[in-house]
Amino acid sequence: MTERLFQQFAFLNEADRLKSVLRATTLCDGSRRENSAEHSWHLALYAMVLADHAPADVSIDRVIRMLILHDLVEIDVGDVPIHSANGHAHASAETIAAEQRAADRIFGLLPPDLAAQYRALWDEFEAVESPDAIFAKSLDRVQPVMANLMSGGGSWKTYNVTFDQLEARVGGKVARGAPRLWEWVRGQVRPWFG
Amino acid sequence: MTERLFQQFAFLNEADRLKSVLRATTLCDGSRRENSAEHSWHLALYAMVLADHAPADVSIDRVIRMLILHDLVEIDVGDVPIHSANGHAHASAETIAAEQRAADRIFGLLPPDLAAQYRALWDEFEAVESPDAIFAKSLDRVQPVMANLMSGGGSWKTYNVTFDQLEARVGGKVARGAPRLWEWVRGQVRPWFG
Repeated sequence: MTERLFQQFAFLNEADRLKSVLRATTLCDGSRRENSAEHSWHLALYAMVLADHAPADVSIDRVIRMLILHDLVEIDVGDVPIHSANGHAHASAETIAAEQRAADRIFGLLPPDLAAQYRALWDEFEAVESPDAIFAKSLDRVQPVMANLMSGGGSWKTYNVTFDQLEARVGGKVARGAPRLWEWVRGQVRPWFG
Repeated sequence: MTERLFQQFAFLNEADRLKSVLRATTLCDGSRRENSAEHSWHLALYAMVLADHAPADVSIDRVIRMLILHDLVEIDVGDVPIHSANGHAHASAETIAAEQRAADRIFGLLPPDLAAQYRALWDEFEAVESPDAIFAKSLDRVQPVMANLMSGGGSWKTYNVTFDQLEARVGGKVARGAPRLWEWVRGQVRPWFG
């Protein structure tokens, strides 16, 4: 048990570093940039509150676990803003390879049973094919939209994002998992873009 | 649906303010004080990773939901450090009354069904009587112990905490929900107190 606890806390202490990974979006009050740990907490709360937008075959508890883990690789790779490099940096081959190496290292700190379980959950999130992952990804995409709207533009201003770019890079992914949710959010943000 | 979504997002946007509530403990690297949103995320991860320390009748998914919600009242009340005022401020009658008013206001932003559900979960956490709440409270008490240990003392130094005080204010609550966990953590922290 002692060896297992050393591994569990090696992982939990390493995970603390996610609190120092800064994202492109700010808090809703615009006071500072959001970090990836508090973003992950907010997404877990999104999953609880917006569960009525998930299809019936989605397990919200699995979605919550997925969202708690989903950004841990950023401890090594950092956050790659979706609108940076004109929308091309986010899912580049280099970023994906670096995130795979990060997942090997970080989940590898855990006892083997937990390492395998969390790696599978993270792989599922990244693949965006299962109903749980598709809904989780919708939430991951919609939360920064609300943060930008509340803070007066946020990363839309930083990267000169147009409404069409938002639709293409973000709207489609939100709508895939939660179509009525995107319809409503779209209506809220449309006026901001003039 | 539109009215419901307005209420859901009124709550989710208000919840963002938890990211600005600062705690007495710092990040593990000592670089800054931890906020209550990222603390809540870390606790959800603790629940996942340390689930094997929970008694068999504990639902880890309920524990995770409880931990995601447990500090929202601090948006109005702030964090009351467990070692402040020589250990007497934390569960004072004034603090408890203020937290009740905060719960009324904050959960009251939600649609009635969600408001009732989350309030019941928060009340259960605060009462620390159910197996789920007792385990959740163990994690809430043990995470700052690890943060203080990693950062070289943290709030133990701020408040001149002795090992006996740590045992009395923290150890008992961790041990109540996870006795073997406290036994191990106790052994890790004992040398720090000399």
